Amino acid sequence: MTPSSALPRQVVIREVGLRDGLQIIPRTVPTAAKLEWIRDAYAAGQREMEVGSFVPARLLPQLADTAELVAFAKTLPGLKTSVLVPNLKGAERAMECQADLMLLPLSASHAHSLANLHKTPDQVIEEIARIRDARDACGSRTCIEVGISTAFGCTLQGRVEPSEVARLVKAAIDAGAEAVSLADTVGYADPAMVRSLFEAVLPIAGDKLNCGHFHDTRGLGMANVYAALELGVSRFDACMAGIGGCPHAPGASGNVATEDLAYMLASMGIETGQDFDALLALRQKVASWLEGETLHGTLWRAGLPKTMKQEQPA
Amino acid sequence: MTPSSALPRQVVIREVGLRDGLQIIPRTVPTAAKLEWIRDAYAAGQREMEVGSFVPARLLPQLADTAELVAFAKTLPGLKTSVLVPNLKGAERAMECQADLMLLPLSASHAHSLANLHKTPDQVIEEIARIRDARDACGSRTCIEVGISTAFGCTLQGRVEPSEVARLVKAAIDAGAEAVSLADTVGYADPAMVRSLFEAVLPIAGDKLNCGHFHDTRGLGMANVYAALELGVSRFDACMAGIGGCPHAPGASGNVATEDLAYMLASMGIETGQDFDALLALRQKVASWLEGETLHGTLWRAGLPKTMKQEQPA
Repeated sequence: MTPSSALPRQVVIREVGLRDGLQIIPRTVPTAAKLEWIRDAYAAGQREMEVGSFVPARLLPQLADTAELVAFAKTLPGLKTSVLVPNLKGAERAMECQADLMLLPLSASHAHSLANLHKTPDQVIEEIARIRDARDACGSRTCIEVGISTAFGCTLQGRVEPSEVARLVKAAIDAGAEAVSLADTVGYADPAMVRSLFEAVLPIAGDKLNCGHFHDTRGLGMANVYAALELGVSRFDACMAGIGGCPHAPGASGNVATEDLAYMLASMGIETGQDFDALLALRQKVASWLEGETLHGTLWRAGLPKTMKQEQPA
Repeated sequence: MTPSSALPRQVVIREVGLRDGLQIIPRTVPTAAKLEWIRDAYAAGQREMEVGSFVPARLLPQLADTAELVAFAKTLPGLKTSVLVPNLKGAERAMECQADLMLLPLSASHAHSLANLHKTPDQVIEEIARIRDARDACGSRTCIEVGISTAFGCTLQGRVEPSEVARLVKAAIDAGAEAVSLADTVGYADPAMVRSLFEAVLPIAGDKLNCGHFHDTRGLGMANVYAALELGVSRFDACMAGIGGCPHAPGASGNVATEDLAYMLASMGIETGQDFDALLALRQKVASWLEGETLHGTLWRAGLPKTMKQEQPA
């Protein structure tokens, strides 16, 4: 059995609310508000943020200001800025604006891959290789992370074989991915699946597998994070106020809530560098920008336990 | 590291909605509706239920029909009926109506113990001994379970020392408790605390420690269950629709939701004997009986994953 001491001492929470969160919400949050979000999140201690996607603006007009957000984020010292890119064209834009990291989604579900990117998983692998070649040719320092989406199952296809996930992880690394993450895009994962899939993929990917992305659709987001933590995973995606979702996951709530995840980690003595008061103040702003949308999370309502308040400086 | 195969194969979910759930809700659900709840929960596969408390009716008028509920529950073959009793007088009533189990709360927090039972923890231990003596003297077969409440911290007192929890577990067993459970009454636990406290108490209590009671106040209920499962704990309290709470836990949501817990366990291949369609139909009834109250849980909204629907017979 894993002793608690085996949990990572430090964990990075990558805020993906500006991308995964806002992509599912039809309204466009003004750029000024997004800049305030980035600034406040940085002040709250966040050092990794996914600020948008380089997809055609006609598809996701609410993310059309991604380049401007990257430019601002790059002015904040030590902030690692990531963007989602669906293809070489998006990757070229990410490299142009010198994003620190570009996240390439690769669906382990064949059906989801076709629905989402109009390509089979193996065609996406070929695109990853082209992106790596282009990146190396131009001398860009933008890191390439491949996010294996629908890694735990798919609302379109149903079951996704772990062996297929493992095959795609290896293929993505062979094609030039420098980091790989496993994503429960539709909220099908449970902690036993998380343990089992990470155990299967870690020997293939080693240190390159360093991020879990869990949706809380069926209330298991935090349990899934804990299962991954026990295997040493030390980087997780999360969305302020638990926004986010997948157009192919009906009834879904979003990603694990940043503020709740920061709370769980802090409660377990794991450093995240996050300040709760600042996170909750930002949450209130996000709630005002998204008035009328369904938000999630529990910490904003319940507050910190008295025991943690006692431990924190006044 | 714990392999998934080390998780228990079968888990008992004890439905405590009729007690822990309803005690915090001022309205009185009609006895006829409670009987329907018990009948439907039984039909959905539930085989352990806490149906009420033997406390003075002036304190909890909404639970005044507990004896009638026990009488009905005892007509259902194989249903283990438990009731909460705060003292010897309550225990005498539980034995009179031949409840299968009486749950004696013992607060590990001195402050909570005084607020809740007007006794120190050690005075409660003395009462447990009196109850055990009375039980043995009258030849009753009602089992004695001691629930260690505020085992992970307390909204009144703050920190609760694990060593004090361990001391009280030992004292409760020495006083005659036949089973012990650990309860996160106010939602302060995290998975690392669960692991650590159960690891500390299991050598003292052995098989007598067989139940976890987790509130989902800060979204960690399911993660806490998973942490306990990894240590072999195979019995958990839960409330339909996640109702329940403690008057000393402001902003709290309730216990882990029965239907969500049943889903997580089934997803991990752990047998609970629960039927999802029947659970969700009962949840709808409970929601109608409690119209206007805040309910919780996710499965009712998100539905089962396609993968689980594929696995279940149509």
